[in-house]
Amino acid sequence: MTTTVDLIADLGEGFGAYTMGDDNALLDLVTSANIACGFHAGDPRVMDRTVAECVRRGIGIGAHPSFPDLVGFGRRSMDLTAEEVRTDVLYQLGALSAFAAAHGTSVTHLCPHGRLGNLVITRADYADAMVQAVAQFDPSILVLTQAGAVVDAAANHGIRVGMVGVIDRNYEDDGTLTPRSHPEALIHNLDAVVERTVRMASEGTVLSREGKLLDVDVDTILLHGDGPHAVELATRVRDALLDAGVTIAPLAATLRQNSLARP
Amino acid sequence: MTTTVDLIADLGEGFGAYTMGDDNALLDLVTSANIACGFHAGDPRVMDRTVAECVRRGIGIGAHPSFPDLVGFGRRSMDLTAEEVRTDVLYQLGALSAFAAAHGTSVTHLCPHGRLGNLVITRADYADAMVQAVAQFDPSILVLTQAGAVVDAAANHGIRVGMVGVIDRNYEDDGTLTPRSHPEALIHNLDAVVERTVRMASEGTVLSREGKLLDVDVDTILLHGDGPHAVELATRVRDALLDAGVTIAPLAATLRQNSLARP
Amino acid sequence: MTTTVDLIADLGEGFGAYTMGDDNALLDLVTSANIACGFHAGDPRVMDRTVAECVRRGIGIGAHPSFPDLVGFGRRSMDLTAEEVRTDVLYQLGALSAFAAAHGTSVTHLCPHGRLGNLVITRADYADAMVQAVAQFDPSILVLTQAGAVVDAAANHGIRVGMVGVIDRNYEDDGTLTPRSHPEALIHNLDAVVERTVRMASEGTVLSREGKLLDVDVDTILLHGDGPHAVELATRVRDALLDAGVTIAPLAATLRQNSLARP
Amino acid sequence: MTTTVDLIADLGEGFGAYTMGDDNALLDLVTSANIACGFHAGDPRVMDRTVAECVRRGIGIGAHPSFPDLVGFGRRSMDLTAEEVRTDVLYQLGALSAFAAAHGTSVTHLCPHGRLGNLVITRADYADAMVQAVAQFDPSILVLTQAGAVVDAAANHGIRVGMVGVIDRNYEDDGTLTPRSHPEALIHNLDAVVERTVRMASEGTVLSREGKLLDVDVDTILLHGDGPHAVELATRVRDALLDAGVTIAPLAATLRQNSLARP
Repeated sequence: MTTTVDLIADLGEGFGAYTMGDDNALLDLVTSANIACGFHAGDPRVMDRTVAECVRRGIGIGAHPSFPDLVGFGRRSMDLTAEEVRTDVLYQLGALSAFAAAHGTSVTHLCPHGRLGNLVITRADYADAMVQAVAQFDPSILVLTQAGAVVDAAANHGIRVGMVGVIDRNYEDDGTLTPRSHPEALIHNLDAVVERTVRMASEGTVLSREGKLLDVDVDTILLHGDGPHAVELATRVRDALLDAGVTIAPLAATLRQNSLARP
Repeated sequence: MTTTVDLIADLGEGFGAYTMGDDNALLDLVTSANIACGFHAGDPRVMDRTVAECVRRGIGIGAHPSFPDLVGFGRRSMDLTAEEVRTDVLYQLGALSAFAAAHGTSVTHLCPHGRLGNLVITRADYADAMVQAVAQFDPSILVLTQAGAVVDAAANHGIRVGMVGVIDRNYEDDGTLTPRSHPEALIHNLDAVVERTVRMASEGTVLSREGKLLDVDVDTILLHGDGPHAVELATRVRDALLDAGVTIAPLAATLRQNSLARP
Repeated sequence: MTTTVDLIADLGEGFGAYTMGDDNALLDLVTSANIACGFHAGDPRVMDRTVAECVRRGIGIGAHPSFPDLVGFGRRSMDLTAEEVRTDVLYQLGALSAFAAAHGTSVTHLCPHGRLGNLVITRADYADAMVQAVAQFDPSILVLTQAGAVVDAAANHGIRVGMVGVIDRNYEDDGTLTPRSHPEALIHNLDAVVERTVRMASEGTVLSREGKLLDVDVDTILLHGDGPHAVELATRVRDALLDAGVTIAPLAATLRQNSLARP
Repeated sequence: MTTTVDLIADLGEGFGAYTMGDDNALLDLVTSANIACGFHAGDPRVMDRTVAECVRRGIGIGAHPSFPDLVGFGRRSMDLTAEEVRTDVLYQLGALSAFAAAHGTSVTHLCPHGRLGNLVITRADYADAMVQAVAQFDPSILVLTQAGAVVDAAANHGIRVGMVGVIDRNYEDDGTLTPRSHPEALIHNLDAVVERTVRMASEGTVLSREGKLLDVDVDTILLHGDGPHAVELATRVRDALLDAGVTIAPLAATLRQNSLARP
């Protein structure tokens, strides 16, 4: 039974004169941040400011590496070699770590962005390349993921993983997410999303699309910052978790707590 | 009197399918490398390979940050704010440090590239911003420079400097380099360049353009990798230094040795 | 006396997933558009959509070329050679022209963006390079500018100019804009801006900062799309011009009308 | 029987301080050029100089658009939408056309680069998007391709095609190229390549990998500029064609001639 959970969001996704999402609102809600590293979003000023704000509020700092595709916001597949994935991740992880160091802290986790984030779940070569970059840079950094190839890669390289709870997507009976192409892939009802989140965090279970009760490990809950009701939903999720007696804590604390609870 | 000197070159300045200079030849001659960090040249693969080769040969690894101007190879002035300089340098320094970590070592020095390298000599705000980035990231990293604003900035931030000897340019009587616009700015005669280099390293002096004997501190000698006679000259310089009894050693050893020798 | 004027705004300054300004509101107000060409903002999809909307509404299409500085939004000086300015402008002008052609029209004008736009007013070499690009690509394209070096360059190359009225900045007695560093550079009072605009367009005069009545040629009025009151001000300016009996018409018609009226 | 053929090469693939291939040698051999447009290679200066050289020698100017992937040199698959392909091609085609206009000529053809060039052969949506860009920009521009989806797309949009002869690759019995993964995909023997080229151009036939005599339409022969023997092979191919009585002529003339000869 999970009773401690981290709240996380993608932050620092502005670029130059451009902004993206409502970072200020999310900074008041989360305990961890996935910070863009310049390949799909983010620039050195945005990274510096975002890290500074996280440090000021005690929010855990994570790298959010992407395919090198600024105009596509990292959402398009690119047929990189595994070696290109490894070196692109290393570059971005190192760049973010400099801002962490400048603000007296270090990177605690890595969570891949967009299309790269999708592909590492199923492509073992990409998962391995990404995890290898983490292992080579700093093996104390943990990798956030959903069930899939990254879990195996992390085990192979001795890297800890944190499991991300997806609160607005349906699950299939086998524990995988319902594909986006399916009409019931997304859960649009906000009340339903809030209720699922509480159950995930407090009971470690989720009802599949076809009604089966599944066990899920959840160390962190991903909140979105864009969309019309994003901040409202994020606020409700946080409040409901607190009301249900769930402890909200940064990843390091959450992971330690949860690893004790898991068999 | 300086009897130990480092030999250094700009390396890893390829990009994607493009190459630049003769890295393989220079890797056999130098004890330190200024490695491009992706803003004027270099990409994650080039950085990884270059760091790997340096580690294999015991060559010291340095960041070679630049203005963000790939098409201009970092040679064009850009009117950045000091804050933009600081954060751009942090980003590049961090990115390179990831490859250093991946190969079991760390960044030993930083030497700014191209137009940024020119401007920090005279612009105190840029010098301070660049040195501040080093101080914030890792104060054990030393900064390579010529006489000018960087020396003062480094003193303010408690960062060590290494003095770069420029062997193919004339000096004025006040110790500054003869401006490039002057017809005698460059020394074209290879024999003269070799002879100057030996005197710089072994005696710590150089004859000014107008014939005055100047004292110069030289911790490292910058070798070029492009141009028709670059590798030939670099080889001759190295051989002449060894023949003159000068010890060629990486920056850390050179700096320790030279700081003892200086009053 | 000018009684016909064009209304213009910078449009299509989004990039990838990012938006900038309120294009939809401005498209209802203007008769010409300066469209970003990918160097400071804009990408092929944004350009295509923006041109399509302009064509649908009969808005004149102009190129808005910039220094190549996406992260700086073209607002930072870059020390390009005149040849770099000429070729960068050609590239951007050609790129935009392809979208104009695809939508059955052509580029009617060019108006430089940001820092490039500032510099061509005073740097004769940049003004000449930019106008030369226009002359080489299509000499029927007119160049928008304020008093300064572009006017002379255009005369030399036989290119027509359109004079841009700046409505929220003070003028000095010599007809130049009060420098931004001056505390009275900007006019913050919306009523005052609206009143000045009407006088500029209907009488061809403006009161200088020190109270002198200056003659100004104004073919087009630049409206802004960002800032808290931008759309409100733009709407008020347009309404006030129409109330004062000024004809609002695209650049080609305005210029023809105004060139008849000027001595 | 084809007796007139164009010789073509990829040119202008430098970028900033970087060079690629031996443009000077190829400019003496070809009658048409595929010129990089800035997405995989090329920058406004390189484009300007390359077009200038082509105009000076009467070489036909073609756009060589690519996926937007400078660091990957356009060789990596990117999962663009058809709309992204159409608009990216428009942008690049327009940009090159500005340099053609500046030098008093216009773009005569388009030939897609690298991975985009591979994919349009088999992906009908990409082929259609690319050809649509040509049709929208200037329907008199012809598209170079091998047998495949581009031929159909061009027919649909009323765009003329020129068939590219591939001289160093084997063909299967069905007229498609032997896949690169096959050990006999490439023909390494220079004599064999020269002999095939002459037969292709003069007889319109090629021997398949399994020995079958195939009919092939060839309007232009693609020469390479990189690799150790590239210029030597290109020179031998050209000489052999002339010795065999083949007329070497720019694409426009070749296509007119060949369309008369074909049934």
